[in-house]
Amino acid sequence: MYKKHREKLFSLFDEGQSGVVFMQGSEIFYRDETDYEYPFRQESNFWYLTGVNEPDCALILDLKTEEYHLFVPKRDAQYAVWHGYVKSKDTYQQQYEPDHLHYDNEILHVLNNISPEKVYCLSEVDAELVEDLDRSFEVDIESLQDALTYCRVLKTDDELKLMRKAAEVNNKAHRRAMEIIKPGMFEYEVKAAFTKVQYEHGLQQDAYNGIFASGKNGAILHYVENTSKIKDGDLFLLDAGHEYKGYASDYTRTYPANGKFTDIQAGVYDAVLNALNTCIEQVDPGVKMEDLHMNAARIMMEGLKELDLVKGSVDDMMENDIFALFFPHGLGHFLGLDTHDVGGYPKGVERIDRPGIKFLRVRRDLQPGMVITIEPGIYFIPALLIPAIEDDTQSKFLNADKLTKLFEFGGIRIEDNVVVTDDGCENLTDVPKSREDIEKLMAG
Amino acid sequence: MYKKHREKLFSLFDEGQSGVVFMQGSEIFYRDETDYEYPFRQESNFWYLTGVNEPDCALILDLKTEEYHLFVPKRDAQYAVWHGYVKSKDTYQQQYEPDHLHYDNEILHVLNNISPEKVYCLSEVDAELVEDLDRSFEVDIESLQDALTYCRVLKTDDELKLMRKAAEVNNKAHRRAMEIIKPGMFEYEVKAAFTKVQYEHGLQQDAYNGIFASGKNGAILHYVENTSKIKDGDLFLLDAGHEYKGYASDYTRTYPANGKFTDIQAGVYDAVLNALNTCIEQVDPGVKMEDLHMNAARIMMEGLKELDLVKGSVDDMMENDIFALFFPHGLGHFLGLDTHDVGGYPKGVERIDRPGIKFLRVRRDLQPGMVITIEPGIYFIPALLIPAIEDDTQSKFLNADKLTKLFEFGGIRIEDNVVVTDDGCENLTDVPKSREDIEKLMAG
Repeated sequence: MYKKHREKLFSLFDEGQSGVVFMQGSEIFYRDETDYEYPFRQESNFWYLTGVNEPDCALILDLKTEEYHLFVPKRDAQYAVWHGYVKSKDTYQQQYEPDHLHYDNEILHVLNNISPEKVYCLSEVDAELVEDLDRSFEVDIESLQDALTYCRVLKTDDELKLMRKAAEVNNKAHRRAMEIIKPGMFEYEVKAAFTKVQYEHGLQQDAYNGIFASGKNGAILHYVENTSKIKDGDLFLLDAGHEYKGYASDYTRTYPANGKFTDIQAGVYDAVLNALNTCIEQVDPGVKMEDLHMNAARIMMEGLKELDLVKGSVDDMMENDIFALFFPHGLGHFLGLDTHDVGGYPKGVERIDRPGIKFLRVRRDLQPGMVITIEPGIYFIPALLIPAIEDDTQSKFLNADKLTKLFEFGGIRIEDNVVVTDDGCENLTDVPKSREDIEKLMAG
Repeated sequence: MYKKHREKLFSLFDEGQSGVVFMQGSEIFYRDETDYEYPFRQESNFWYLTGVNEPDCALILDLKTEEYHLFVPKRDAQYAVWHGYVKSKDTYQQQYEPDHLHYDNEILHVLNNISPEKVYCLSEVDAELVEDLDRSFEVDIESLQDALTYCRVLKTDDELKLMRKAAEVNNKAHRRAMEIIKPGMFEYEVKAAFTKVQYEHGLQQDAYNGIFASGKNGAILHYVENTSKIKDGDLFLLDAGHEYKGYASDYTRTYPANGKFTDIQAGVYDAVLNALNTCIEQVDPGVKMEDLHMNAARIMMEGLKELDLVKGSVDDMMENDIFALFFPHGLGHFLGLDTHDVGGYPKGVERIDRPGIKFLRVRRDLQPGMVITIEPGIYFIPALLIPAIEDDTQSKFLNADKLTKLFEFGGIRIEDNVVVTDDGCENLTDVPKSREDIEKLMAG
């Protein structure tokens, strides 16, 4: 599959141009000044182009001949003692199938042989290395980022297979958490059960620092302590996923720790679920994420109005950004080798019109092959609601008495991962999300 | 307990001198250019002096008045939405009890008020910050490292309590792994069960990247892939531990995946266990780690000779470093806020005789309050043995025929954590280690 990725990248550059791509893979990172190693995980662009998930490698892609040079570190016998058998060049060759395999002290030699007019780099660090080797190379550190973003936004079938695998395991892990949770447990006990399922299936790398939040912690969007005791009556919000061969899964489910929704929990839950389900139905090529976001916000405000937590016209609420008090984050993001995958952010939306590279812009309307999260949520966040209740414009939409009683409620977020297809989408997430299904699973 | 740590540090500086200690705590680290956050973990020296395990803090210790200034970040409401409730100054004050609490924009103001003759820093980064604030400060980045090392090497009773807690949970996690392992599992399934026990007890931070190695992977000292299938007849080597409130546990056990030692496994195992048990008996104030190391090596060579894997006089083997072919790592290390804790390495052994700081040297003989690992091991590492078999001097000690048949054997390491006491040691590790006890536990 990685050969296809390189071909996709080659296709974006003017044919036959005298240029190369140069990129260093990631190295091992240590914490502070200690020898505590963070688990190695390849930089995503390097992984995308090579499939190499080991430290201290580099690549050169020759844009004229479309040849792929892989550089690997030369290890000594001492390395074998500590880190395993030293791979022969043959082993590297068979495993990664580059057109040319070199040790990493041959970078300058290869560059000089190709003698490119331009060297495309991703980062200042790579550019500096090239310039240190020989000041005469002309280095471009702008175009490559855009080109790789363009490639990575639309997933190939091979990539989708890996993402389905990450999703399959995440389905199991989320179900397990739902099955075992009980009031009186600590949040980290749910994390223990969830992580066990991931590890058991070989998914040792989390896609992000997971959120296991009970009660009011659910209103902290980035809660990662996971140290509170779960109380009877609490909602539990679980936002977590692991990677399969680099590809992320990222779901959220929220449910009552004791297995039974109260009336107010049910009311807020259904508002969020309604937003999620409607958005998923609306996913289609050509649709804009920002439109889905606003639709979701409107549906949730209608739900909150039915619950008498907000009042007045929903049109006016939308116009006055009242929805942002309850839904202060985005509806979703691209998903892939990174959890917040490339291509979804404003900087990628600018038109790109640079010499040597032929695509014109990163397109933001949904297209088949994009993988996105859809994750509406309603939160009762004192830091947002207290100032709003005191604000003349905003307070007239708010039922302050009722809202004030919900400051311990936390929040509800429900998040699925979907692949945009030609006629809608494929939902990768299969974890109970209707109240009925959740209560049934939790009843055992 | 952190107040006592500061007092210990103050006691090492000349009384009444006009100086301050300035240190920044750790921040959150991100992977490559992404927003993937590594879980936050305070830098160990900062943790030691403050007990503060949250990002973006700083401290000043006034050496003249012995006052402790803690600097905390000023967060806005947006921060509360993403990361939790913004703590008030009162909350910080109650939680950490500094003599003076400030926001982090007041560092220069406090420094100017104290107007010290010298600012002691740990790192270039901290020194640069001080110099950027005002070039007139005189900065010393040598003495503080030595002083903190001196403090941290001898654990207080409070620290030992935390280390016992980390050990208690590690005892359970290692037992669980021993109970559930079966041939046919993947190594990561054992990691799943092990990690679940740690997380269930709230120990969410590993002390180091754990090793779960079956068969020949056991001969890779730093094996962290954990992706092989465990075969019937394999030994399994598990080297892992988590932190409790920053304090590490670090054990190794090695046992047959199917619950029954073969003859050769039993023979090598007993050689290693004999070395471990003898060293633990020998631990006493005044004993040198290097002597223990050589004793362990000799005992293991005697074991290998009994097994007819090596031949000739053990004295000659020791003289010719034959033991290092089978035991290529150190016998142990200090343990504490870091797994490879400070104070055990040669740089700390140099005499320190600098103005303003009164202790003379870091003492390396074992002393009450030190916590060390003892971890002898025997490995059959082709990368070491093949050249040795081909070497004239070394080969005469080696029974090449028999050794060559053990290239898939892997290795055996057994590791306990002990506290040096006035009359010997306290062993923190309580996981079966005799063959009898292991086979009994594994039989269920």
